Amino acid sequence: MKALGIGLIGTGYMGKCHALAWNNVSAVFGDVERPRLVHLAEANAALAASRAREFGFARSTADWRDLLADPEVDVISVTTPNQFHAEMAIAALEAGKHVWCEKPMAPALADAERMLAAQRSSGRVAVMGYNYIQNPVMRHIRSLIDEGAIGTVNHVRVEMDEDFMADPEAPFYWKSEAASGYGALDDFAVHPLSLLWSLFGHVEAVIASLAKPYADRPLKEGGRRAVENHDIASVLMRLPGGISGVLMANRSAWGRKGRIALQVYGSKGSILFDQERMNEFQLYTVDGRASEQGFSTILTAPHHKPYDRFIPAPGHGLGFNDLKVIECRELIAAISGMASHSIDFNHGLRIEKSVHAMAQSFREGRWVEIAAA
Amino acid sequence: MKALGIGLIGTGYMGKCHALAWNNVSAVFGDVERPRLVHLAEANAALAASRAREFGFARSTADWRDLLADPEVDVISVTTPNQFHAEMAIAALEAGKHVWCEKPMAPALADAERMLAAQRSSGRVAVMGYNYIQNPVMRHIRSLIDEGAIGTVNHVRVEMDEDFMADPEAPFYWKSEAASGYGALDDFAVHPLSLLWSLFGHVEAVIASLAKPYADRPLKEGGRRAVENHDIASVLMRLPGGISGVLMANRSAWGRKGRIALQVYGSKGSILFDQERMNEFQLYTVDGRASEQGFSTILTAPHHKPYDRFIPAPGHGLGFNDLKVIECRELIAAISGMASHSIDFNHGLRIEKSVHAMAQSFREGRWVEIAAA
Amino acid sequence: MKALGIGLIGTGYMGKCHALAWNNVSAVFGDVERPRLVHLAEANAALAASRAREFGFARSTADWRDLLADPEVDVISVTTPNQFHAEMAIAALEAGKHVWCEKPMAPALADAERMLAAQRSSGRVAVMGYNYIQNPVMRHIRSLIDEGAIGTVNHVRVEMDEDFMADPEAPFYWKSEAASGYGALDDFAVHPLSLLWSLFGHVEAVIASLAKPYADRPLKEGGRRAVENHDIASVLMRLPGGISGVLMANRSAWGRKGRIALQVYGSKGSILFDQERMNEFQLYTVDGRASEQGFSTILTAPHHKPYDRFIPAPGHGLGFNDLKVIECRELIAAISGMASHSIDFNHGLRIEKSVHAMAQSFREGRWVEIAAA
Amino acid sequence: MKALGIGLIGTGYMGKCHALAWNNVSAVFGDVERPRLVHLAEANAALAASRAREFGFARSTADWRDLLADPEVDVISVTTPNQFHAEMAIAALEAGKHVWCEKPMAPALADAERMLAAQRSSGRVAVMGYNYIQNPVMRHIRSLIDEGAIGTVNHVRVEMDEDFMADPEAPFYWKSEAASGYGALDDFAVHPLSLLWSLFGHVEAVIASLAKPYADRPLKEGGRRAVENHDIASVLMRLPGGISGVLMANRSAWGRKGRIALQVYGSKGSILFDQERMNEFQLYTVDGRASEQGFSTILTAPHHKPYDRFIPAPGHGLGFNDLKVIECRELIAAISGMASHSIDFNHGLRIEKSVHAMAQSFREGRWVEIAAA
Repeated sequence: MKALGIGLIGTGYMGKCHALAWNNVSAVFGDVERPRLVHLAEANAALAASRAREFGFARSTADWRDLLADPEVDVISVTTPNQFHAEMAIAALEAGKHVWCEKPMAPALADAERMLAAQRSSGRVAVMGYNYIQNPVMRHIRSLIDEGAIGTVNHVRVEMDEDFMADPEAPFYWKSEAASGYGALDDFAVHPLSLLWSLFGHVEAVIASLAKPYADRPLKEGGRRAVENHDIASVLMRLPGGISGVLMANRSAWGRKGRIALQVYGSKGSILFDQERMNEFQLYTVDGRASEQGFSTILTAPHHKPYDRFIPAPGHGLGFNDLKVIECRELIAAISGMASHSIDFNHGLRIEKSVHAMAQSFREGRWVEIAAA
Repeated sequence: MKALGIGLIGTGYMGKCHALAWNNVSAVFGDVERPRLVHLAEANAALAASRAREFGFARSTADWRDLLADPEVDVISVTTPNQFHAEMAIAALEAGKHVWCEKPMAPALADAERMLAAQRSSGRVAVMGYNYIQNPVMRHIRSLIDEGAIGTVNHVRVEMDEDFMADPEAPFYWKSEAASGYGALDDFAVHPLSLLWSLFGHVEAVIASLAKPYADRPLKEGGRRAVENHDIASVLMRLPGGISGVLMANRSAWGRKGRIALQVYGSKGSILFDQERMNEFQLYTVDGRASEQGFSTILTAPHHKPYDRFIPAPGHGLGFNDLKVIECRELIAAISGMASHSIDFNHGLRIEKSVHAMAQSFREGRWVEIAAA
Repeated sequence: MKALGIGLIGTGYMGKCHALAWNNVSAVFGDVERPRLVHLAEANAALAASRAREFGFARSTADWRDLLADPEVDVISVTTPNQFHAEMAIAALEAGKHVWCEKPMAPALADAERMLAAQRSSGRVAVMGYNYIQNPVMRHIRSLIDEGAIGTVNHVRVEMDEDFMADPEAPFYWKSEAASGYGALDDFAVHPLSLLWSLFGHVEAVIASLAKPYADRPLKEGGRRAVENHDIASVLMRLPGGISGVLMANRSAWGRKGRIALQVYGSKGSILFDQERMNEFQLYTVDGRASEQGFSTILTAPHHKPYDRFIPAPGHGLGFNDLKVIECRELIAAISGMASHSIDFNHGLRIEKSVHAMAQSFREGRWVEIAAA
Repeated sequence: MKALGIGLIGTGYMGKCHALAWNNVSAVFGDVERPRLVHLAEANAALAASRAREFGFARSTADWRDLLADPEVDVISVTTPNQFHAEMAIAALEAGKHVWCEKPMAPALADAERMLAAQRSSGRVAVMGYNYIQNPVMRHIRSLIDEGAIGTVNHVRVEMDEDFMADPEAPFYWKSEAASGYGALDDFAVHPLSLLWSLFGHVEAVIASLAKPYADRPLKEGGRRAVENHDIASVLMRLPGGISGVLMANRSAWGRKGRIALQVYGSKGSILFDQERMNEFQLYTVDGRASEQGFSTILTAPHHKPYDRFIPAPGHGLGFNDLKVIECRELIAAISGMASHSIDFNHGLRIEKSVHAMAQSFREGRWVEIAAA
């Protein structure tokens, strides 16, 4: 395949992360043509120009629609705030570009559905930025489960916790407005759902409890304003194959910084993982003598593909940004028509439907079944 | 107070554990009269005699009712299988003895209610064997919460997991029969509930999901028999003060041996604990500079009362059996009419009502409120 | 064997610990006669009487020599300060009593040698209180090494660290006087040496570096006094079979409470242990697939004898005081003429010679070979 | 400063790592001109061409001397095997290029001294590739020590262990030849020494014990060959300010993958770090109430500069390759004449002298003082 021409919209953290991925994917993997960094869009023209220079893009613009018209652009990274995803992704697909869109698809389910429709009619590749599924550890866990290393899985728990909303005296801001979404469900639940999908397929039914740790928060201008959504979500789930599950998300959990803790229980063993220690996982199997059975802490190593493309020695560790490089490689595979482990708009929509079902189950105090996308 | 005369019914593990506690309580604490080990009952007379010799009891019997008539017996430890608790505890109370009864009170709620009634009419002390609440670590956590070290608690998660039912090919035995109870709820949920009560008070409402990891198990005589209860329980909870909670119990969780993992989140910090490492806990507070904030792993030490009565140096560690010695000291306090941190029949009944409410919430697919005892 | 009659000298922490062991050994193990607690000696007569009551001893005295003349006393526990060990142990042996003496034997090597001579001429059993070797985890590690689970051991590191001397502004007291011994070497090195002996046999040659973290300490009466011994010791060692080793001891190591961290490296695997988490160890072996190799964290369980005598369920945990009960059982085995895993005066003397050799190697700046006892 | 023109010699793992650093440094930091990747040298011309394409270099050559003559090249990365470092670095400096050379400088001390001399006469910047000192965690530890967070440091231990030489039946290869160097000292000791230098300054005196876990190894062609150097090194050290230290290195330590475990003890606290969990460290201080003192596990966060340049959220984690990007930024600072935290040829030489002193101390069985470079 010839070198892809890249367009990038947005230069915040995720924009930078995409830029690093496009810069590194060829050097790291050595099996794809080095992408050409063609065109960068950022609302502020001066910022666009300086970021283009730093990131290595050939040209820049303050109008993202310029990328649609640029014949050298084959793929567009959409890394802007969530409310712009639908408009940009649909326009890009209609312009015949492949799309790499940060999660989630869109705040409104209807917009997400339009995005999927646009992808289907375009015939182009459209992939979501769910990078945690790309961790070599997660991929190895998936292969272990698939090969039956822990027997038949029957129970799973997953917790995603951070503490950026933990301070009750931090000023009220948009994340506590109902207009921004359900709260922890939107911010966090989608990530565990992406991991569960990767390992087991989509969640089938849910019942959720949502909680507000703080009824109100101070306003910068004085006084307090009532919090309109929920920083804590606890969800009972039914997964494919009769697996019972619990999903917990808390964005006001003091001390948690980037925790995504997974427990998978099977008929022959168990697997534990925590994203805060993303370069290791724990495995318990019933092999061998009972007096030496315990959870093994396994450090990432070249065995765990594609760690080997980054580092030839075990135990040295990948970083969060490296996951985006792997995701980028998977996107290129998809564009090349090869097998790809990534979440396309179809699966992305199903994940977002699951989140809406959780919110509904809380409102109605009952289990809600989730329909296929 | 004069030395208490002790009767013991049952010489299985819990009988031994009670015997060790009665042997040690005076030497460890140094502030109570050394109990007189008077009378031991065990169905097999020869076993009763040999255990009495090993445990240091003056006399033994094959008929537990002999203890009721023994004027030298002031307190009776009831450590027999659950189905005998009600009969023995009620008889002991009616005979004017204090009672130390292993948990749970009784398989049937009606029997537990009769036990409470017997205690009330007797005016004697009747305490349940919920030893995990006696861990100096748990007591210190309780004092930290009470003094506001982590602010106002808003969320709690507790998991209790072991793997003694994890092997799907282990022969069917009575624990998989419906007659033995709900499964994980009976075996495990009562312990986390005792901890939650100790920290926050009784659970107010629940909705549970129960799961069978294995539909059937092999019979020793050949063939397989359907499993009749649930090895896995996941429960959403509402606790006093608007605390949201999740309780998870799994007796088929490979690799877990004696796990009771607690996460408590407050407005100023968090606390973590796991019974598998019962001599430590983790504390995160927002004190000090952000760049050095992290979970502190705190080892038990003489600061954490009554660890100091066992060992004068920090970090040396108590064992599971030591918790029973503390529980014994609390029982003596109660008998002496002093403040005691223990679960009497009143609170024990409420815990058992909570378990029944969980089972009901699963059957009916809805939240169930739990009435006061 | 008939029930042993017990005499106890000293009622500080170690006296209490011995008393608990004598109280529990029969109930825990169920295979030895319950000892008769005969006679307790403590310099203060009133304290002697009250401790006797608490600990369950029949009579008490302010003169320890009364125990020598007591025909009902078969074994004497010596738990007094180190400088009294030689006189008491020798007198006890000469009176025909067996001796259970807390470590170390004596501050002066000549006294330790007289103790061994007294034991040899008495024909009685004399055992040192090195309880860490009795941890079921350590015993299991020993059996793993013996059966070749990690191949041939070639390297070992052991660290013993606490922080009771870590505060430079804590008042000067006797532990900083040269008369009290070398410092960390006496306080701590003997324990790692007992573990090394248990696993590999006695150390053959050493070179040590001793260090004073603080040149002086404040006097209660004002002013400061120079510290006369060394709170930190670092030792290179040669062990049997060409094993290279490092022993580190630090009694001024902030944050360490009861750390004895062991690393054993062999040709087929490795073993890690830390006394601060005394109910677990870590094992790495080259068995199985490389992609799942990692250190397994193994919790103590009934497999790890004699944990099963204390608790029938895995993962529930023993405490520090329980180790003394096991040591007591080993002492009874030795008195019964059966195989016993304990450190008698012969091996105890060799451990103390090793400590003196370390101090000599530091003074002389060269390797020192250690002669057999 | 104008954009630097980059030459790269070598395309093995370290060549790739340098290439990624040059590709990323501008995008990550945003405060330096994006370097121009000018010229790549690799002995095999075809490989040179394909790597140049993957890594983004404009041209390639099979003759590394072509880079010396290339006027567009300002800096040369030397990532070839150790025996070529001296020749290439000296030639580059003599050609007026700045040099970024992978560690160590050279197998022979005389060559390392010539490299320093060449740097001095050239007036160019020459920096070694000691990337572990660039970890934001290590930098933060350094600032904590400097500001007195743990008081006056008095003791330090550092262990570097991996297991790539742990299998005794792996075929003999060049790393076991005496010609390749001392063994663990060369492979590993230099890294801990770089960390110690970064925190405390250079080691002053040493005494080492070197050990061979395996006397011989199998030859591919049959038979066995004696191992000529030492896979294990244990070293007692004296550091500036009277700090006592222990350095341990083992390249045959089963289960260790990339361990660099550091323990730093001071008069007011302690710090622990392990490179296998490179995104966290542990801090113990005597601040606050004794009953809550424990080691805090602190996850890397934007507070810990320059983590914030990679990721704006805490706890997400950097990878090993990211450290090279930071090192690259420091090199650019040095070339710009600004303060730089990096190990230049002067300090690099002193580290290598320390290694030779360790070997000498082992041969001579005595302490060896290390002269300033």
